[in-house]
Amino acid sequence: MAEFDTGLPSVRQIQGLIKEGKEVEVKLLTQDVLVGQLLWQDSDCFCLATQEGIRTIIWRHAMAYIKPQEVEMGSRSLQVRQ
Amino acid sequence: MAEFDTGLPSVRQIQGLIKEGKEVEVKLLTQDVLVGQLLWQDSDCFCLATQEGIRTIIWRHAMAYIKPQEVEMGSRSLQVRQ
Amino acid sequence: MAEFDTGLPSVRQIQGLIKEGKEVEVKLLTQDVLVGQLLWQDSDCFCLATQEGIRTIIWRHAMAYIKPQEVEMGSRSLQVRQ
Amino acid sequence: MAEFDTGLPSVRQIQGLIKEGKEVEVKLLTQDVLVGQLLWQDSDCFCLATQEGIRTIIWRHAMAYIKPQEVEMGSRSLQVRQ
Amino acid sequence: MAEFDTGLPSVRQIQGLIKEGKEVEVKLLTQDVLVGQLLWQDSDCFCLATQEGIRTIIWRHAMAYIKPQEVEMGSRSLQVRQ
Amino acid sequence: MAEFDTGLPSVRQIQGLIKEGKEVEVKLLTQDVLVGQLLWQDSDCFCLATQEGIRTIIWRHAMAYIKPQEVEMGSRSLQVRQ
Repeated sequence: MAEFDTGLPSVRQIQGLIKEGKEVEVKLLTQDVLVGQLLWQDSDCFCLATQEGIRTIIWRHAMAYIKPQEVEMGSRSLQVRQ
Repeated sequence: MAEFDTGLPSVRQIQGLIKEGKEVEVKLLTQDVLVGQLLWQDSDCFCLATQEGIRTIIWRHAMAYIKPQEVEMGSRSLQVRQ
Repeated sequence: MAEFDTGLPSVRQIQGLIKEGKEVEVKLLTQDVLVGQLLWQDSDCFCLATQEGIRTIIWRHAMAYIKPQEVEMGSRSLQVRQ
Repeated sequence: MAEFDTGLPSVRQIQGLIKEGKEVEVKLLTQDVLVGQLLWQDSDCFCLATQEGIRTIIWRHAMAYIKPQEVEMGSRSLQVRQ
Repeated sequence: MAEFDTGLPSVRQIQGLIKEGKEVEVKLLTQDVLVGQLLWQDSDCFCLATQEGIRTIIWRHAMAYIKPQEVEMGSRSLQVRQ
Repeated sequence: MAEFDTGLPSVRQIQGLIKEGKEVEVKLLTQDVLVGQLLWQDSDCFCLATQEGIRTIIWRHAMAYIKPQEVEMGSRSLQVRQ
């Protein structure tokens, strides 16, 4: 397990999303896009409560990116070409 | 082999799933979704007893996420877009 | 190369499969499913003798899961959804 | 968390892109191609402001390559064969 | 760069393939299957001379498995299900 | 960030390609094949100048293999089966 540097900008910014209870969109290396609220983070994982309230433990190594769920899901806000 | 920090929230929460004998759904980076009961975890792997009782050793590095098997398998509880 | 902790449950359980000469099914991150007998393991790799006796060196980092080849190959014992 | 060697050419060059507020194209291991401006980097992640201004935290381990958004998006400047 | 433990069975066995000038088949995480002769190995990479003599440097982290090119290429000796 | 062992054969051989200004073909885990000249390498990344002169920073962890661009692009010199 890697040490967990809580001083990192990325860790602090995500801690902010957790504190604000912000809805986030998480893209995984499996191509899954999970939407919900982050409950906690540690050096290995995140815990996301999905919109059905199911606590999903996601491994950091499987994360591609995370962004706040700003706009209506329908309108693809991120310029993503696959 | 990484040291195994049994104090991590993620390790403790998964240990809880093991103790409760909870049925879980595990999504791997291969896109496989395995369903069964976690028997043990160590710093490298998990052991999952499938519904046929077959002990499957899964590498942590291959795990994307894990969630309790709350609802009837049919209704996709997780908001997953691929 | 990581240190090799032979005391880990996962390492010990796989050593048992090696000792028993058990036929195993190995799923790789490439989606390959290899069937054969494990001959040895070290901190980086496994050696699998395929059913044609070809010694295949597999990297640990490419492994998703391993399970004993319990049932007749045809009936997919593992509940796998892709 | 790995130590962050700010002296590396790669880290310095990306810091230059951040300082210049350059528009960049980022290719991820998920095949996503994200376009926007890098706001910061740390040992684990980058923060990219997309063209809609959405702050996206991207994990380093998910990055394949990054290049300045030199030419008109349409003309694929990079000789890429998939 | 990881230390390179030349005492490992996997490193020694591959060194044997190099010394014997054996033709090998290498399967990568990209699904590429490269055939040729291994020239050298270090803690990060292998060098493979393809059948056209082109020296290809392959990263260890991209390797899935390696096996001697025992049988005629056409007959898939490895029981591989994808 | 891993230490950068400039004594490794793989690092030295790639440094040779850089010094010679050799055109190289780089295959990434995303399946991208990038062609151009390597400008520099560090412990985390390479910098490739594409044929349009665009400086692309590529992460080592995303590299599958690299080879000199010996033959005419059209004739697939590498025996690659996917």
